[in-house]
Amino acid sequence: MSFSSAISGPAPGPRHPGAELQAFVDGGLAALEARLEELCRGLGQELPGLPEVLARAVGTGGRGGARWRPLLTLAAAEACGGDRSDALDAAVAVELTHTASLVLDDLPCMDDSPLRRGQPATHRLVGSAGAILLSVGLLARAVDLLGRQPRWGGVLCAEWGRTVGLQGMAGGQAMDVAATAPLRGSARRLHRAKSTLLPAFALSSGARMAGADETTRAGLESFGRFLGWAYQLVDDACDVGEDRENGRAPAGLRPLAQSRRLLRLATRRLRGEPGLGGDGVELLVGLAGRIVVPEPVPARGPGEAVRQGRV
Amino acid sequence: MSFSSAISGPAPGPRHPGAELQAFVDGGLAALEARLEELCRGLGQELPGLPEVLARAVGTGGRGGARWRPLLTLAAAEACGGDRSDALDAAVAVELTHTASLVLDDLPCMDDSPLRRGQPATHRLVGSAGAILLSVGLLARAVDLLGRQPRWGGVLCAEWGRTVGLQGMAGGQAMDVAATAPLRGSARRLHRAKSTLLPAFALSSGARMAGADETTRAGLESFGRFLGWAYQLVDDACDVGEDRENGRAPAGLRPLAQSRRLLRLATRRLRGEPGLGGDGVELLVGLAGRIVVPEPVPARGPGEAVRQGRV
Repeated sequence: MSFSSAISGPAPGPRHPGAELQAFVDGGLAALEARLEELCRGLGQELPGLPEVLARAVGTGGRGGARWRPLLTLAAAEACGGDRSDALDAAVAVELTHTASLVLDDLPCMDDSPLRRGQPATHRLVGSAGAILLSVGLLARAVDLLGRQPRWGGVLCAEWGRTVGLQGMAGGQAMDVAATAPLRGSARRLHRAKSTLLPAFALSSGARMAGADETTRAGLESFGRFLGWAYQLVDDACDVGEDRENGRAPAGLRPLAQSRRLLRLATRRLRGEPGLGGDGVELLVGLAGRIVVPEPVPARGPGEAVRQGRV
Repeated sequence: MSFSSAISGPAPGPRHPGAELQAFVDGGLAALEARLEELCRGLGQELPGLPEVLARAVGTGGRGGARWRPLLTLAAAEACGGDRSDALDAAVAVELTHTASLVLDDLPCMDDSPLRRGQPATHRLVGSAGAILLSVGLLARAVDLLGRQPRWGGVLCAEWGRTVGLQGMAGGQAMDVAATAPLRGSARRLHRAKSTLLPAFALSSGARMAGADETTRAGLESFGRFLGWAYQLVDDACDVGEDRENGRAPAGLRPLAQSRRLLRLATRRLRGEPGLGGDGVELLVGLAGRIVVPEPVPARGPGEAVRQGRV
């Protein structure tokens, strides 16, 4: 089973509130798709072929993977009593930021991946220079969207800057590229920021757009950090062999078990947040259960069974 | 004479308000240097050697070129009756954005420049991946700084996003990389955005930080666009030979004369802005006169006489 179908497929497990969660996911994905398509059409029309390359990078038309990060933004807004539509542009900014990071990760000078989601990576379509500039363009569009949010625009952008920057995703990826030995201490924390800060920002921005109080927002941000790490551990489980070859320590001896343990801990904390209603918590917990693979999936070959849909 | 010394040197021409302008430049550069050094020290300490690479990219310790874009931000704030210190972080954000664009421009997949300001380009120190991530980190730090500005944080970030994005600097650079024939119409306008939008943003953000009214801010933004283009024309004058080899049209038959004509037009408009006092206008005009080379400089060899200090 691919991870995409774990998110958007029809068969939630018994821990999820079933049909309601599915309805939330379906509605959220439809709203995200419409807004992302609109943005891709409106950008870069002066550059021949760019709207199509953008649409492929962002994965419009159902090619965009699970989109779980922007779904977290929408879910956080709902959980804090807000309207999902108020958080749509923040959610789109989260997805554009994620897309930009994938475009850069795939570059020949980074992971050198010719494919992304089974399609040619962006640099295979427009070259490295084009891919880098497209990535910068996506980041800039995310900032434009966030900056225009009423009341919280500046705060959201400042948070975004710290999420993306050298003490966040860019620094974590630099650590990933540069590290030749197991990472320890602050270096390990920075590397982890690559995976944890964007989900944390996704939830925090949804909470802000719904006018959540600071304690609730911080609680959701922390939930996002746990969730990002739990997700990464499952991803690492696919990469254990590769990590060993590179001389890096795997995330743990039993990363899948550790991932589920992290999720349980994060869920317990979330249930203790006084500012969140029961329905909101269950929405977030149900979504989180789908994001972190609910059952251990035995890795076949180089982990393709789990990894093929992880986005 | 290098362009750096044209900005920071001791001998302003008769069109400048002399000592006052020099005092403004000296004070502004000192404040910018101090803040930039502080930022470089505080960023990326987990990544071995990064603070030093950052400092070299940003050009602290007097290696940073003329810094005329952030000086425009400070000058706009003063011209609008504000305090220069209120606009310092916006000015620094402008300089970090400019630095990020230079780091990307120099990459092997873009202009493939081994040197910047006579020193090894960033990718020669940390590789392409490191340079790209450092560039993203600088952009993110700029957004963080802008987003934290009181009252105008969101608006500044949204403007920054449009300045940097696919309809701004990133799109213009993409056009630069992709174009194989003379550009016309909207493609030519987009290419020009690479040079004009950051000076326009520099002035606009300074005006905002000083609480300028919308008409005055828009007037200064327009002045920045003219100025950016006038500067670019002089740069183009150095590149005419290279442009001809690439089959691109030079900016005009007499770009230096065209540049001075643009500056005169922009100055006349600026003097008509009712929201700006005489001293403020003269500060901006004096600074502009130093930015756009005041007298035609005959290009020697491949334009090195003019170009060596153009940053």
